Amino acid sequence: MIIVLKPKASRTQVEAVIREVRNLGYKPHPIIGVERTVVAAIGDERTHQTLETLLAMPWVDQVMPVQRRYKLVSREGHPKTSVIRVGKREIGGKRVQIMAGPCSVESERQIVDTARAVKKAGAAFLRGGAFKPRTSPYDFQGLKEDGLKLLSLARQETGLLIVTEVLSEADVDLVARYADILQIGARNSQNFALLIAAAESGKPILLKRGMSMRMEEWFFSAEYILSRGNPNVILCERGIRTFETMTRNTLDLSAVALAKTETHLPVIVDPSQAVGRADMVSTLCKAAIATGADGLIIEVHPDPKQAMSDGAQQMTPRQFEIMMRELKPFIHAAGRC
Amino acid sequence: MIIVLKPKASRTQVEAVIREVRNLGYKPHPIIGVERTVVAAIGDERTHQTLETLLAMPWVDQVMPVQRRYKLVSREGHPKTSVIRVGKREIGGKRVQIMAGPCSVESERQIVDTARAVKKAGAAFLRGGAFKPRTSPYDFQGLKEDGLKLLSLARQETGLLIVTEVLSEADVDLVARYADILQIGARNSQNFALLIAAAESGKPILLKRGMSMRMEEWFFSAEYILSRGNPNVILCERGIRTFETMTRNTLDLSAVALAKTETHLPVIVDPSQAVGRADMVSTLCKAAIATGADGLIIEVHPDPKQAMSDGAQQMTPRQFEIMMRELKPFIHAAGRC
Amino acid sequence: MIIVLKPKASRTQVEAVIREVRNLGYKPHPIIGVERTVVAAIGDERTHQTLETLLAMPWVDQVMPVQRRYKLVSREGHPKTSVIRVGKREIGGKRVQIMAGPCSVESERQIVDTARAVKKAGAAFLRGGAFKPRTSPYDFQGLKEDGLKLLSLARQETGLLIVTEVLSEADVDLVARYADILQIGARNSQNFALLIAAAESGKPILLKRGMSMRMEEWFFSAEYILSRGNPNVILCERGIRTFETMTRNTLDLSAVALAKTETHLPVIVDPSQAVGRADMVSTLCKAAIATGADGLIIEVHPDPKQAMSDGAQQMTPRQFEIMMRELKPFIHAAGRC
Amino acid sequence: MIIVLKPKASRTQVEAVIREVRNLGYKPHPIIGVERTVVAAIGDERTHQTLETLLAMPWVDQVMPVQRRYKLVSREGHPKTSVIRVGKREIGGKRVQIMAGPCSVESERQIVDTARAVKKAGAAFLRGGAFKPRTSPYDFQGLKEDGLKLLSLARQETGLLIVTEVLSEADVDLVARYADILQIGARNSQNFALLIAAAESGKPILLKRGMSMRMEEWFFSAEYILSRGNPNVILCERGIRTFETMTRNTLDLSAVALAKTETHLPVIVDPSQAVGRADMVSTLCKAAIATGADGLIIEVHPDPKQAMSDGAQQMTPRQFEIMMRELKPFIHAAGRC
Repeated sequence: MIIVLKPKASRTQVEAVIREVRNLGYKPHPIIGVERTVVAAIGDERTHQTLETLLAMPWVDQVMPVQRRYKLVSREGHPKTSVIRVGKREIGGKRVQIMAGPCSVESERQIVDTARAVKKAGAAFLRGGAFKPRTSPYDFQGLKEDGLKLLSLARQETGLLIVTEVLSEADVDLVARYADILQIGARNSQNFALLIAAAESGKPILLKRGMSMRMEEWFFSAEYILSRGNPNVILCERGIRTFETMTRNTLDLSAVALAKTETHLPVIVDPSQAVGRADMVSTLCKAAIATGADGLIIEVHPDPKQAMSDGAQQMTPRQFEIMMRELKPFIHAAGRC
Repeated sequence: MIIVLKPKASRTQVEAVIREVRNLGYKPHPIIGVERTVVAAIGDERTHQTLETLLAMPWVDQVMPVQRRYKLVSREGHPKTSVIRVGKREIGGKRVQIMAGPCSVESERQIVDTARAVKKAGAAFLRGGAFKPRTSPYDFQGLKEDGLKLLSLARQETGLLIVTEVLSEADVDLVARYADILQIGARNSQNFALLIAAAESGKPILLKRGMSMRMEEWFFSAEYILSRGNPNVILCERGIRTFETMTRNTLDLSAVALAKTETHLPVIVDPSQAVGRADMVSTLCKAAIATGADGLIIEVHPDPKQAMSDGAQQMTPRQFEIMMRELKPFIHAAGRC
Repeated sequence: MIIVLKPKASRTQVEAVIREVRNLGYKPHPIIGVERTVVAAIGDERTHQTLETLLAMPWVDQVMPVQRRYKLVSREGHPKTSVIRVGKREIGGKRVQIMAGPCSVESERQIVDTARAVKKAGAAFLRGGAFKPRTSPYDFQGLKEDGLKLLSLARQETGLLIVTEVLSEADVDLVARYADILQIGARNSQNFALLIAAAESGKPILLKRGMSMRMEEWFFSAEYILSRGNPNVILCERGIRTFETMTRNTLDLSAVALAKTETHLPVIVDPSQAVGRADMVSTLCKAAIATGADGLIIEVHPDPKQAMSDGAQQMTPRQFEIMMRELKPFIHAAGRC
Repeated sequence: MIIVLKPKASRTQVEAVIREVRNLGYKPHPIIGVERTVVAAIGDERTHQTLETLLAMPWVDQVMPVQRRYKLVSREGHPKTSVIRVGKREIGGKRVQIMAGPCSVESERQIVDTARAVKKAGAAFLRGGAFKPRTSPYDFQGLKEDGLKLLSLARQETGLLIVTEVLSEADVDLVARYADILQIGARNSQNFALLIAAAESGKPILLKRGMSMRMEEWFFSAEYILSRGNPNVILCERGIRTFETMTRNTLDLSAVALAKTETHLPVIVDPSQAVGRADMVSTLCKAAIATGADGLIIEVHPDPKQAMSDGAQQMTPRQFEIMMRELKPFIHAAGRC
């Protein structure tokens, strides 16, 4: 770390910093500048305590970390991209994996029809919420275990693998019995108790970026999972919250590019949540593929205007099928299949 | 709700909207404008389904809610400010309540000394984290139950009431055995499973605003707690995430003013988390009081530079004592005590 | 417009709103709801005064516009995409136009060498700043008229057309003598005096989106130019300011998709400014093309580490050439050339 | 500056950095860390070129500035708070100065009546827009020179000093003939041509913070003015753009506290623009005073619902008078008058 002192720090104050740096397990290396003194603290920032507490000394102006502290997810120590195997499918390999299905599971007919339609159009995974995180307690909260059973039935009928969200530590075991991939939603992206419980289920985890999460924090949330012995994390960019109001969120495709270079984890994109409008999904899917995304997760509903949640952002099966055809040339351009 | 159609919507399309509005339980009221048709949907938006799914019709341009849907927290139906009683103290009454203590509980000596110091300076509540939500899995995660025991000991020694965070549904009962107020942190502000579990403990809840939470969402998170039969919610503004980098977060004092007029709940302010710098805490406390805050929650540590978390934002007991004296004239100016 | 009254508005208060709506030139249409009264104001919002001033009545809760007020840029009244002709080139036609060159013009050799290199790799326009908007008054402010002369020389040598920024109303005539396209930068995106002066030069205008500009505001800034009789506006997305710190700005590709559907103007993308890192430019260019961008504007410098401004985001000519080859399959996938 | 190299940088690469640092006028000081090499570059960052261009070397990971580069506005070199004298008034002295008046000057009667009312209630300055920056070209753009003449008349009638915005370099001389303080609005906060033209008028400048301006950028915009020989800058916080939608902007009172410690300039607050709602202005004024603001600028209109711009945020003279009385105890608590 680099500790920058204020311009008029006295010799005694510099020495106090040096002493404290040594106490905290680093080797201090002072540099006398033109206007300020800087102390470089040499040591492994990933194992020692952070030195930010030195800011409590009024003559310390800034403390700047030098290393990246997420070691398990970092590509630095793991240059090869991880491929996550789920059933017979691979996420992070050559094939761009498509996950599709309704926002919420609503009925047998709804989920099975959707599953058939998206499979026919090329999806390999079925998404669908059984436990729904809703801003208002008065909105539909999902069919819960009945929803999980319907997802399981749809898997039986179609062979699609199941991705579904888990909202509560108490439900991890239950959801893990039905799902092939556990989804951690944006609102729970720093719910560390849930991250740990999900990690310990041993299931692959789809980890959405939080609404106002810096990339570094996203990588640390993934590090929570890897550090609990579960290496199967798929990062999912789903839009961040900004001042813009014409789209629900702002899809951050730079984050996809950066997550692919900074970490070795596969990265997928959720354009439906990002913009909240079905009419823009196809365009953003093309862009996501061009950015190097390893997969897409897309909301599809047989009759969006009757949907029990988020109707505006769900495509019809017909729109989805057309989109899947339109994506092909971009998938080829990206050297994927 | 108001449904705005696109400029060239046909008669058939208008009729489809009208039919759907009626199906969803509202009384449709079409208005033919100069350029567009608008359909007003009359009915109680708080009990019917939202009509946002109508956006799935390509000829619908906007759906605009008219009512506020958080009924239990809204001042509309509950004009008197709620006063939350905790032990012999009241939050939301005439007295501005001061909660103070370290970021993390670290040792018996640290917590008891701090408790004595902040009590002497005028605090009525002791804060201190036993379970710490940390961005990195490698940072200090708190003393857990040992920390709770130390808080309990400090209460015994000083009579201060205890505010402490709960991070996991599984720990609610444990934390509730030791704490007088359960704190839900910013990262868990939409962890609905935790909100419900905490609500059901029957304890007063201090609900922090999430890092990028719109006020409406904050009020809905409080509504989750009230709708589970627990009326004792204290809202806490602790800074929102913006583009600014000179402060850790941006303290939003307008949110305090608005939360006081929109809801009947007491509102307190956490300036330490908001700015992340001890040297600005005193100034922001004065501003918070001027805005009508019912309390303050402030980080105080006997030796901030040795703190196991967030040293830069913790005041020393001496700084805290000076601040408490400086706050007096502002408390009087605000007509409080 | 829709005027929503507060729940307990009296009959007299409703009548006051109706009277005021009529005074301001609209036809009022009151609707009595379950809990609130709503007044629809019928009339052309683009020619009448806005009704937002009604919020000054304490019993008015919300005023919601229904129409889009930017008529000249809107695709509603102009369904065909505008093609801007500059010299023999077309922006908004089938060809994706590439603009490339250094952040700042620094010397004859630098600009001529760069021009030759980018032309060879496929660019049709040369970019380069002669007047530089710099956050600090102590940073290099550009070569000014000397820089314009060097750009002109490079045009002579290569036939590339010139895009360069104008910072001051007083310089519009000067810059217009040398440039083929006048660029309005992000910091001046709501400098209406400059927008009008640039519009009146008759030159095509490349209008960057401001750092925290909502799309609607961007379209209105374009409307300023069109309403002064200059139809040749090219919109340019260059990243918005968010909380993220790993990239300089957050490139908002949804804005490209939306600007293409909401307006009839061509839209290009500046990935260099958006991320501030040359190593991500190629990936984001692919994504921009997939989103439907009509062009790209890219920073290229013969020796970025010696650049007088923004070295980190400038590609070398060699990197640019490689990128141009890599873009081809995406350009074809998008049905462009 | 501190240059952080990537973990596997070779000896040759380290040497290339050292060489370049020396070429750019700094003294290099390499430090070999556990995992990375860091090069401290010793020299005055305010006079040398910035080293950020070194990021163009692919083995450089970060370049971190150590010094603050705004020397003229910084309190470091100028510990005493500047007091700006305007007529017989002082801004930055013991008295909290109140500026009040309508958003736009509309008529003689409107401006003179307002001036009399606000003077009676205690204001020393009259604000009022003659040139209005409007998002839409179709909105009222101000009375221009006629507006300036009406302001001048109101000054004659009441003795109030005049603060009014200048939008164009071409109008600086004209506005300076009528105004006592020139206002630079948020949209022009990085319109450097206008900043320089205004500085050269010799008039005191009220410099609003831009909508998404980091504080450092705000201080640099002030530095543009001071470095042109005009020391009379008053900083004005007016809310920043965030994701929140219940208030128009988010008033950032931490910025007031920080601007007061980081710079020696007086700082005032514009709560009307910040929230866009008259009913919250009084509360935010109290908070601004508690934060140490040297003044307030407040919108007052004789009949807000008839206002030609921004009616919702303008107070009536009666509301203003009540507020002025309510502010007294807070002004005293702050040790001001």
